[in-house]
Amino acid sequence: MSKQESAITPKREEDYPEWYQQVVKAADLAEHSPVRGCMVIKPWGYGIWENLQKTLDGMLKATGHVNAYFPLFIPLSFLEKEAQHVEGFAKECAIVTHHRLEKNAEGKLVPAGPLEEPLIVRPTSETIIGAMFAKWVESYRDLPLLINQWANVVRWEMRTRLFLRTTEFLWQEGHTAHATEEEALEETMRMLDVYEDFAKNYLALPVIKGEKTESERFPGAVKTFTIESMMQDRKALQCGTSHFLGQNFSKSSDIGFCDENGQRVFAWTTSWGTTTRLIGAVVMTHSDDDGLVLPPRIAPSHVVIIPIIHKEETKAEVLEYCEQVAKELRKMSYLDSKIQVIVDKRDLRGGEKTWHWIKKGIPIRLEIGPRDVAADTFPMKRRDRPHKESKIVSKVELLQMIVSELEDIQQSIYAKALAFRDSHCKKVDDKEEFYKFFTSKDEQNEIHGGFALCHWNEESDAEEIVKKDLNVTIRCIPLDAEVEEGKCIISGKKSVRRVIFAKSY
Amino acid sequence: MSKQESAITPKREEDYPEWYQQVVKAADLAEHSPVRGCMVIKPWGYGIWENLQKTLDGMLKATGHVNAYFPLFIPLSFLEKEAQHVEGFAKECAIVTHHRLEKNAEGKLVPAGPLEEPLIVRPTSETIIGAMFAKWVESYRDLPLLINQWANVVRWEMRTRLFLRTTEFLWQEGHTAHATEEEALEETMRMLDVYEDFAKNYLALPVIKGEKTESERFPGAVKTFTIESMMQDRKALQCGTSHFLGQNFSKSSDIGFCDENGQRVFAWTTSWGTTTRLIGAVVMTHSDDDGLVLPPRIAPSHVVIIPIIHKEETKAEVLEYCEQVAKELRKMSYLDSKIQVIVDKRDLRGGEKTWHWIKKGIPIRLEIGPRDVAADTFPMKRRDRPHKESKIVSKVELLQMIVSELEDIQQSIYAKALAFRDSHCKKVDDKEEFYKFFTSKDEQNEIHGGFALCHWNEESDAEEIVKKDLNVTIRCIPLDAEVEEGKCIISGKKSVRRVIFAKSY
Repeated sequence: MSKQESAITPKREEDYPEWYQQVVKAADLAEHSPVRGCMVIKPWGYGIWENLQKTLDGMLKATGHVNAYFPLFIPLSFLEKEAQHVEGFAKECAIVTHHRLEKNAEGKLVPAGPLEEPLIVRPTSETIIGAMFAKWVESYRDLPLLINQWANVVRWEMRTRLFLRTTEFLWQEGHTAHATEEEALEETMRMLDVYEDFAKNYLALPVIKGEKTESERFPGAVKTFTIESMMQDRKALQCGTSHFLGQNFSKSSDIGFCDENGQRVFAWTTSWGTTTRLIGAVVMTHSDDDGLVLPPRIAPSHVVIIPIIHKEETKAEVLEYCEQVAKELRKMSYLDSKIQVIVDKRDLRGGEKTWHWIKKGIPIRLEIGPRDVAADTFPMKRRDRPHKESKIVSKVELLQMIVSELEDIQQSIYAKALAFRDSHCKKVDDKEEFYKFFTSKDEQNEIHGGFALCHWNEESDAEEIVKKDLNVTIRCIPLDAEVEEGKCIISGKKSVRRVIFAKSY
Repeated sequence: MSKQESAITPKREEDYPEWYQQVVKAADLAEHSPVRGCMVIKPWGYGIWENLQKTLDGMLKATGHVNAYFPLFIPLSFLEKEAQHVEGFAKECAIVTHHRLEKNAEGKLVPAGPLEEPLIVRPTSETIIGAMFAKWVESYRDLPLLINQWANVVRWEMRTRLFLRTTEFLWQEGHTAHATEEEALEETMRMLDVYEDFAKNYLALPVIKGEKTESERFPGAVKTFTIESMMQDRKALQCGTSHFLGQNFSKSSDIGFCDENGQRVFAWTTSWGTTTRLIGAVVMTHSDDDGLVLPPRIAPSHVVIIPIIHKEETKAEVLEYCEQVAKELRKMSYLDSKIQVIVDKRDLRGGEKTWHWIKKGIPIRLEIGPRDVAADTFPMKRRDRPHKESKIVSKVELLQMIVSELEDIQQSIYAKALAFRDSHCKKVDDKEEFYKFFTSKDEQNEIHGGFALCHWNEESDAEEIVKKDLNVTIRCIPLDAEVEEGKCIISGKKSVRRVIFAKSY
């Protein structure tokens, strides 16, 4: 491969959406299935999801939550209990109407056994979990109730993209009930902080915590909070949301309890979720024109050893040495698990194997040939550095430095993503400049200015206007936004702080 | 509680099915949901499932399998590709026919957006996974393909029982493709062995490995193998199945590959699964009239410490001591994880807490009061022993013996279950005795003889007859059945080995 070429065609700057599809394909993460809008998550992609699950699950348990499992199906009447909620999901529901197949007059199998009440395949579980909470909560002593569920959900999508927007996706959904408004608000913010910690420290995603405006709120929520991240096309991607539901769902599901004074009152509830979309965020934030780049903390494997075998007579010796290095590495711990090592013994040219693993984003590559065995040193290559750059290390040195190298990669890709994001965040105070900021020079690559930090008046029609004109929305009102007097970028009306405007996924 | 009483009403001998429901309820494992046939798995039950998942997942990975995820929905035309397969599942399918809700003329929300082709909520995934395998396999070099999926599946059931038979359940389903018949058969048997190992050594379930007769085969399989366990009502429960699918599914899904001679041939496939039903098997095998008994290797928590506080002035001291014991225990490893300890500080009487944890099946209880703190010794009680029996130990002794005590409980409940099963397996050679063996004295408790090891001629109509007369089926042809000449228990025709007849779940 010559200097100018890249392993992925097209490059990011040529056609960003297509580049994304090709990175996912080259890394063998997932593919479209024959079922409309549903994807197949392949082993390398699912391995990333297993690591995300394990890590986040530990964080949820450490904050006092326990896992449980609720039905896949929600009776239509349950979904209807909360008016805004059903309105929000009505247009994208998969609906089960029959419970068996029967041959019709022509001998063709058709749906039979019509259900009395249609069942909705859960798009989210507030209403069915609410019905159970109503049974479980009687007294203030039963609160708080801190439940999480790992599950699949379905939201019928017309335009789908692997990981980013699919009809079926995997997620965790937390659902909690509290005795007071204050406690429920605290929980809402605590989980937002957990998501920020998870995104920053494991996925290496710099995120901005903020509140959604009314138009972007979860259907039925009083307040929705979000962590927003910037992709390399400078669009925003929502990486997790935490909702303060007030008493909306406790009233519609009748989650009442006896308080300390013996009065029956309604509980205060929250819900919060993250999905397989996070894998899309990781791909789009860190990858380059050679393919996937994985944060070591969530990589399914950390190290690949590629034996370089030119002649049959040195094969056994090289393989034995490679297995020895693998064995020693596998004894070592990284975070709470062992270091995962692959020895790629396939009968392929060394170069092919190298590019295979570059495209899959494995953090560290060791290419070991007969001369390396003789010298007991070999080149170590990092995925976050140019593909020809290497450091010559001995086996002993490798074992001494491997954990810190992995951590250094983790930090370096975070720092790179943060610098990228910061360099494309801009305070904009002029309407004309705002329009220019969001106009791509080139429609194909969809790359525009980034995040515009602008003043906004919430009683204005600024949101409708920028959505219609530029397909730009307010991603969030940052929690750390300074109080600062200004004028709404669109309406010119009074404003007290800046919000983030961006195009988004 | 007096000597004659038990914590669970009714007792096993009084009404076994109702006893089971009450044990599940008292241990707070699961409950019926408002959605027909679907259960809610509560945190203590889900904690058991998480441990089963973690353990079995490790065993599947150790035998070379990787996890992936496939769509929840299967287009009707895919299910129809294998004739026996669709026939087997047609009567119990949840069918999605619409993809949104719309208000009708009366303002009522009704299903809208009819689908061109109905989607079946997966009852099992051979056909959709087969369609992907067909794309992934091109050459013999792509084989074997060893994939597992953890997922929810739906089989519409008219009569449901928590864990044992529910419309939606959780499971793992393995799907593999191989270049030769021999390799696929080896895989089928390897996974049966993995299930046996898992059932015996983690769930403490004695199981019998065997092959299913044709009438009990998985729809579309060439051979179905099973592990069968005996519950305390002496009925059989199928605990896992492994299917050799021959080329049936590879032909219907077109999973072909180029062999070493450049010929395109069909692959040989297998599938195998275990479900949340295993939790039901654990409950019914080990529990007693005081509630759940859990094998320590899969218990969500291993030890509960119950502080006994009579007076306010000793409270702080007792609690501090309890926390200290907990802290030291939690540092210790049991199998691959840390020992899980609960300190039950709830404001309840000690006796209430003790019975709470007996009913939940926690393996070891420590009840610690002020005098125990002063003496630095306390009573340790095991769930597999009478509830008043205790051993006085010091903190140091406890730490020294805890792991071996847990392992001793694990072994003791396995030995008990094995002895029970063996004492209710009987060689029966007389037809009248056979009928007597399976006739309950008391219809309420459903308890009858057990497993009858009898001769059977496969060309006879013995299966139909005993099913009709006694609701008895052949559970399996044991793999270790000795070759032995005899006469079919029903037809009197020639037979070469005994099979297991039993009532079953």
